[in-house]
Amino acid sequence: MKLSRPQEECGVFGIYNHSEASNLTYLGLYALQHRGQESCGIVSSDGNSLHAHKRMGLVADVFSNPDVFKKLPGKSAIGHVRYSTAGASVEKNVQPIMVDYSRGSIAVAHNGNLVNAQLLKAELEAYGSIFQTTMDTEIIIHLIATYKTNSLVDRIVEALKRVQGAYCLLFLTETRMIAVRDPNGFRPLCLGKLGDAWVVASESCALDLIEADFIREIEPGEMIVCTKDGGIKSLFPFKKIDPTPCIFEFVYFARPDSTIFGRNVYLARKELGRQLAREYPVDADVVIAVPDSGVPAAMGYAEESGIPFELGLIRNHYVGRTFIEPAQSIRHFGVKIKLNPVRELLKGKRVVVIDDSIVRGTTSRKIVKMVRNAGAKEVHLRISSPPTSYPCYYGIDTPNRKELISSSHTIDEICRYVTADTLGYLSEEGLISSIGHGNTHYCKACFAGTYPVAFPKPADTLQKGLFEEEMNGHE
Amino acid sequence: MKLSRPQEECGVFGIYNHSEASNLTYLGLYALQHRGQESCGIVSSDGNSLHAHKRMGLVADVFSNPDVFKKLPGKSAIGHVRYSTAGASVEKNVQPIMVDYSRGSIAVAHNGNLVNAQLLKAELEAYGSIFQTTMDTEIIIHLIATYKTNSLVDRIVEALKRVQGAYCLLFLTETRMIAVRDPNGFRPLCLGKLGDAWVVASESCALDLIEADFIREIEPGEMIVCTKDGGIKSLFPFKKIDPTPCIFEFVYFARPDSTIFGRNVYLARKELGRQLAREYPVDADVVIAVPDSGVPAAMGYAEESGIPFELGLIRNHYVGRTFIEPAQSIRHFGVKIKLNPVRELLKGKRVVVIDDSIVRGTTSRKIVKMVRNAGAKEVHLRISSPPTSYPCYYGIDTPNRKELISSSHTIDEICRYVTADTLGYLSEEGLISSIGHGNTHYCKACFAGTYPVAFPKPADTLQKGLFEEEMNGHE
Amino acid sequence: MKLSRPQEECGVFGIYNHSEASNLTYLGLYALQHRGQESCGIVSSDGNSLHAHKRMGLVADVFSNPDVFKKLPGKSAIGHVRYSTAGASVEKNVQPIMVDYSRGSIAVAHNGNLVNAQLLKAELEAYGSIFQTTMDTEIIIHLIATYKTNSLVDRIVEALKRVQGAYCLLFLTETRMIAVRDPNGFRPLCLGKLGDAWVVASESCALDLIEADFIREIEPGEMIVCTKDGGIKSLFPFKKIDPTPCIFEFVYFARPDSTIFGRNVYLARKELGRQLAREYPVDADVVIAVPDSGVPAAMGYAEESGIPFELGLIRNHYVGRTFIEPAQSIRHFGVKIKLNPVRELLKGKRVVVIDDSIVRGTTSRKIVKMVRNAGAKEVHLRISSPPTSYPCYYGIDTPNRKELISSSHTIDEICRYVTADTLGYLSEEGLISSIGHGNTHYCKACFAGTYPVAFPKPADTLQKGLFEEEMNGHE
Amino acid sequence: MKLSRPQEECGVFGIYNHSEASNLTYLGLYALQHRGQESCGIVSSDGNSLHAHKRMGLVADVFSNPDVFKKLPGKSAIGHVRYSTAGASVEKNVQPIMVDYSRGSIAVAHNGNLVNAQLLKAELEAYGSIFQTTMDTEIIIHLIATYKTNSLVDRIVEALKRVQGAYCLLFLTETRMIAVRDPNGFRPLCLGKLGDAWVVASESCALDLIEADFIREIEPGEMIVCTKDGGIKSLFPFKKIDPTPCIFEFVYFARPDSTIFGRNVYLARKELGRQLAREYPVDADVVIAVPDSGVPAAMGYAEESGIPFELGLIRNHYVGRTFIEPAQSIRHFGVKIKLNPVRELLKGKRVVVIDDSIVRGTTSRKIVKMVRNAGAKEVHLRISSPPTSYPCYYGIDTPNRKELISSSHTIDEICRYVTADTLGYLSEEGLISSIGHGNTHYCKACFAGTYPVAFPKPADTLQKGLFEEEMNGHE
Repeated sequence: MKLSRPQEECGVFGIYNHSEASNLTYLGLYALQHRGQESCGIVSSDGNSLHAHKRMGLVADVFSNPDVFKKLPGKSAIGHVRYSTAGASVEKNVQPIMVDYSRGSIAVAHNGNLVNAQLLKAELEAYGSIFQTTMDTEIIIHLIATYKTNSLVDRIVEALKRVQGAYCLLFLTETRMIAVRDPNGFRPLCLGKLGDAWVVASESCALDLIEADFIREIEPGEMIVCTKDGGIKSLFPFKKIDPTPCIFEFVYFARPDSTIFGRNVYLARKELGRQLAREYPVDADVVIAVPDSGVPAAMGYAEESGIPFELGLIRNHYVGRTFIEPAQSIRHFGVKIKLNPVRELLKGKRVVVIDDSIVRGTTSRKIVKMVRNAGAKEVHLRISSPPTSYPCYYGIDTPNRKELISSSHTIDEICRYVTADTLGYLSEEGLISSIGHGNTHYCKACFAGTYPVAFPKPADTLQKGLFEEEMNGHE
Repeated sequence: MKLSRPQEECGVFGIYNHSEASNLTYLGLYALQHRGQESCGIVSSDGNSLHAHKRMGLVADVFSNPDVFKKLPGKSAIGHVRYSTAGASVEKNVQPIMVDYSRGSIAVAHNGNLVNAQLLKAELEAYGSIFQTTMDTEIIIHLIATYKTNSLVDRIVEALKRVQGAYCLLFLTETRMIAVRDPNGFRPLCLGKLGDAWVVASESCALDLIEADFIREIEPGEMIVCTKDGGIKSLFPFKKIDPTPCIFEFVYFARPDSTIFGRNVYLARKELGRQLAREYPVDADVVIAVPDSGVPAAMGYAEESGIPFELGLIRNHYVGRTFIEPAQSIRHFGVKIKLNPVRELLKGKRVVVIDDSIVRGTTSRKIVKMVRNAGAKEVHLRISSPPTSYPCYYGIDTPNRKELISSSHTIDEICRYVTADTLGYLSEEGLISSIGHGNTHYCKACFAGTYPVAFPKPADTLQKGLFEEEMNGHE
Repeated sequence: MKLSRPQEECGVFGIYNHSEASNLTYLGLYALQHRGQESCGIVSSDGNSLHAHKRMGLVADVFSNPDVFKKLPGKSAIGHVRYSTAGASVEKNVQPIMVDYSRGSIAVAHNGNLVNAQLLKAELEAYGSIFQTTMDTEIIIHLIATYKTNSLVDRIVEALKRVQGAYCLLFLTETRMIAVRDPNGFRPLCLGKLGDAWVVASESCALDLIEADFIREIEPGEMIVCTKDGGIKSLFPFKKIDPTPCIFEFVYFARPDSTIFGRNVYLARKELGRQLAREYPVDADVVIAVPDSGVPAAMGYAEESGIPFELGLIRNHYVGRTFIEPAQSIRHFGVKIKLNPVRELLKGKRVVVIDDSIVRGTTSRKIVKMVRNAGAKEVHLRISSPPTSYPCYYGIDTPNRKELISSSHTIDEICRYVTADTLGYLSEEGLISSIGHGNTHYCKACFAGTYPVAFPKPADTLQKGLFEEEMNGHE
Repeated sequence: MKLSRPQEECGVFGIYNHSEASNLTYLGLYALQHRGQESCGIVSSDGNSLHAHKRMGLVADVFSNPDVFKKLPGKSAIGHVRYSTAGASVEKNVQPIMVDYSRGSIAVAHNGNLVNAQLLKAELEAYGSIFQTTMDTEIIIHLIATYKTNSLVDRIVEALKRVQGAYCLLFLTETRMIAVRDPNGFRPLCLGKLGDAWVVASESCALDLIEADFIREIEPGEMIVCTKDGGIKSLFPFKKIDPTPCIFEFVYFARPDSTIFGRNVYLARKELGRQLAREYPVDADVVIAVPDSGVPAAMGYAEESGIPFELGLIRNHYVGRTFIEPAQSIRHFGVKIKLNPVRELLKGKRVVVIDDSIVRGTTSRKIVKMVRNAGAKEVHLRISSPPTSYPCYYGIDTPNRKELISSSHTIDEICRYVTADTLGYLSEEGLISSIGHGNTHYCKACFAGTYPVAFPKPADTLQKGLFEEEMNGHE
């Protein structure tokens, strides 16, 4: 059962020059599971050829048979976890993509989304290219296969100069691993070291699990090439631009124990809660969170306001797996499957409920009602981010505009719809000042509608649904 | 991956007279998943015959195909979740047990453990009985089949008069559902109502999920018979004794949103934390919990002590599933798979870590080290229960005495082993006074060694290993 | 896809004292696959305990993973192949049955059918026995568990004295293998030797495959006990009666390369064809068979008549597996899935078609039409057995009387129904004289209605359907 | 278990304009199962898009779930059965291949093998093409995608003008089905009609099963285009050459009930047997066949020689499925798994054994020994084809030259190796005169070494192993 909130679409992990490469990649993906639960895969290289195992399902399930690792030999490996709006042909879209071409084999794992995918694909097909998947990532591979220069690095650079959008990429060939982060730096990507091995991961929590040292984040526009001598080369082959990292990674995508864009996520979230208390104070008896992502902000709100924080909603730990909703006549469970209130705690109280966002409003409405049914006298909903009125085209699977409640309703209307007594959203300024970091210009597309990378077509004519079709899938 | 703490062994759920009986039982088991993750099953009755579906695995996986419910027709159903030390023959031990015998069909779901199982089984086999499983529950069925009286209730009562130990039982026949709680009332069992249907569940959180009203707890020694006219009959067929409910249900088995033995679990746990702060105060900068079960006690400790509570250890939500430890060379991950510290928070701090128990000590040692490696200056371990030095024979899967660190080590020795700066256990008196409830004499076997139901052999000659063998399995 | 002919219900195989016991049992079952295609299983003994693997499916599929044999260790093993009218609860009915009881473990494989199963089961259940399966075989186990004598042989003898009907049984305990053939000797059972190991099999073709020497047939009423010293003991514990082996084993159940009841099956079948030519000669151009079971009789008919034998109907070798009939609109394929005529051969010819039996008549009708559509000028159907008008209660799954076309129609009527030009059945006398063997009184129940073992109720009141219910299944 | 004889590599089936297209294709593949048992697949078109289901396994297993057909909607469909020397990456090589390209979707099923695959692939890859499979068939698709002409027919013709070798091809797009047979006509392909629907199949037995009318064979070099108006267009776009159909289709590949190259296979095989009797008569008591493919020739030999034909070797009908050879110590079963002699028949006899070919000689040796061990006084082996000394590059999976016993041994040497008393092979002239058909010049590459389609490299430098590698797989 999924709550209706934006879904992070991918995580990547790679390691170069370690005798347990595929095992450690498995662990790295495990730590990144929150970034994608639909499918996952690992490609390893034994120096002569690439080996793959990838499937629909969670990391622990796809790699539940230890014999799998015997089929993933070698000292380097890349892996991928993926979320996607499931379609009929999802199996073939599981990453990393691996192909044989005239120069040998190459695999790629991609976190992000290309905005000129449709145009490039049409062009490639016109020259006879046949696509195996409906993922924009495959375009990068076809572009690489087309360039005739002998240098792999040059071919990748040439290919990436043609694509626009968001990408953290990991390439693996028989002998090399290359990591690239797009010039805007939409998604996080960090570099670590484990003994003599180099490690690349979407978030630092993956380095922690394998006990690798965090070296630094890979910079926007940077390409890291792992070389046979055990070193790395850092290149900046693209035109430098002002980066625009995604501020929502702080709001709820990243794991609280990760450090991204130079800051710990848990502490950042508490700060959002504190700021929210300053912006929207309320006279109340207890602060509770929508677990688990709302907990740090709720703790910050409680600290700033002096109202005690309590675990008023208990989460069923076994949610997250396949869950079959029961038959029609009783199909009104929704969020109850995931959450249950502690009645003894809420009865007769004035309750502040902290959540990190409102998407369609339906889940918030159920939660407010659940809290009220548990006996709360008042329910004050506080959101630790501004209203999100615009879809994301840089790697997050948001609903289209029509479904985003804040794109067509005022805050008062939303408050009435979710049946809260009061509703407060963190302001754009409050969000940015809480995260801080001086001059960084975060991407604010989803709440401000200003898209830092232009589209082939005017963005205001785009409907999410149509656009997706044009994109032929994305990851 | 399991942390080395006692494992609750079962949960039961039943519903009588509802057109969605098996669907609702599925939801009920889902809410009780924390009481047993090894296997689960449902038996339904359509009035003429019983139908079963049961397997190894989690509820969401075993019932992942909605067609399953078409094979579980009827207006009454019982279900079971189970944990067990897995053996070679676990498949056949999945509950509910269902058999055909001379009087028709009967199914039974059991939470608890019988202490005179071995003697009864030998006696039955001597008369030609053939056992299908190695569960003590099957003994009850054979006893029922042996009695010649026409009344099902009488046959059940006669059978139960012969068994000793802990049991919450749900029986289902073609036309009836019967619930029984043993005279000691070791395990919780509650009664609910959903429209015209009666519901029985191990914990009230299962009633909440299906939106059934909580009526009351079923009393120790009580038998509830659901009758065709829509009513229930309450019987007390056994000799009344002083009940001894299991106090560890409060410490960590039950879900925090459940109300058991008359009290909400979350609030009880916070009180344990407060009492712990009174008994073992310490000068420190931050209080953190071993999530998730330690969180309420940590919040209580923080409130009482005035030291701020923080989420210093982040839990990987996807743990709980099958997890294959990677190859030998890197097999030292253990608790890291489950938990990751927030370094920015712990660095340079004096940290109080709250956990609910120490079993072997190995996990606590890893957690203390993890916190210290994250930069903590001091680590003070506080445990919200007394040292558990004795195995449980009433339905909890504890290690045998030799493996229980507190059975052979002083608190000082344990403190040194887990490498904490200081260690404090909640006192027996503190535990009982925090839980309260006037005259209730909780079972304290696991920390006091006083067993309220005698064994066929003197308890002090028992070794857990041997005893288990004699028991021929338990549930 | 099954042609509508009687289905042999079981085959058994056992080996004692060979280091490759389970592997050889697998091969033995493979050779006996024609006796039952629904399910199969092997139980082995390593001297201390029994090990089982059994499933629905063909031998090659159930044992397709060679790791299976690692779980079947030991120097003795028994196996079973089974056909049955599939019901809802077939999985649990797969043989061999294996149980633990007060004396240890015992497994049994059974070919045959007990006629007093229902009475015995009711009696056992009245004393509290609980049955795991719906197979009459389980009754034997319960009877064995009930007797208190220390000798396993005595307990088996006592149990078998109570049952009536057809049985070839193989028992396996931790240390012993025992074979028993019922006093009537309905089904074949033979003894072989492979080095120091003793082998028992339903048919000699299983001995051939593993290159064991054929020693002799096990006699009606004989019990063979394999002893630890490498020898065997032969016992005749039952009252001697005049045996009545099943003559239909010759007509089509047994494999043509087997020798049963002292005679090679292929040669016997050719003799049936010769006799049929003598009894029902016809002026024709070509003799063809309904493959494969009709081929030897067709060759005999051709030899005796001088009319050339040709392969006029070609069999699809891949039939015998699961076959899904296509959608409604084209669901008239039936026998075409299995057989295709050679048009060039049949066009304009007068054709004699040889089959071994007619059950419902529908298949014969399709075959006659297929031959005529292929251009045959005349179609003369010849059957190498007498009309079967009565159901079998000794281990063959025949339709009930109402469905047997010859129980309610004259030969002329059948001829018209199947649209043949002429129809001839081998006479009862012709059948018996062709098989020969002096004084043996074969069971002729299915065509004469004289049942050699009496039923608990008068046979003429029995309807097959009801009877089956009473029997609670049979194997 | 496979006998060591050449393996036919594929069968194709297609139907256009029938409401049960995929169901009928399933039946057609079922009838063609003998042409390929490794994998199979169906692609259907609903007029707007293509739908596929394909897997490793037999037709009845891959399509065992009737729901599969709901996922294969539409009024046209093509299917494929395949045999291949299994490699690590077989799953992706299952046919029909289906791709999306700039012009829409196209699927192709291929029976044959291209001899210039390696050169074409290198050329395509140099221009950036990325291959999904290792099958030469994919080359055809890439070539089609490369041509810019608007006409699908023209693009196919242009693509096929570049390939050399053997091919019967079925193309399916959203709206069209096109069949092509190579100018040499190596493999059979026939055209049928079922109501308004057109049917194409490798052999006529597939038409028989679905009760389609046999219209005619598709001619060498012919292209059949099914058009929307219900008609077909016949084109001959390639240079006309003298066709060279594969004579071994008669010897053993095709089903005996099929008519190929204008002649019924069963009757042709009998004629081979008659001619063999004329060329290599022998004084003997009985003629037996190696079943099943040797039976017609054995019947012909018997008729011509006057020696009676008997079923001396009985075939286990359940062979053909997965069969796990048992453990090392008893791994000498080989042909015994498949065949068992009828001892009573062979004892003391002079036996003529008819087989259709000898490949490595190991199987023949086992069969001769088996017959002799069954008591035969003399064993005379007669082969109904000439010695095959050269590998096939036109779609048959033969061993390489080193493994073909007749490429390096005289007939006397072979006779001694297989331990026969005498050995006779049908002469090349005898083979051709028996099959007849006036001026047809059959391909005799495998016994004469004269390859009708030249290779990119001189054939005499080719080693089968290397060549296969160059071919990057074949089908």
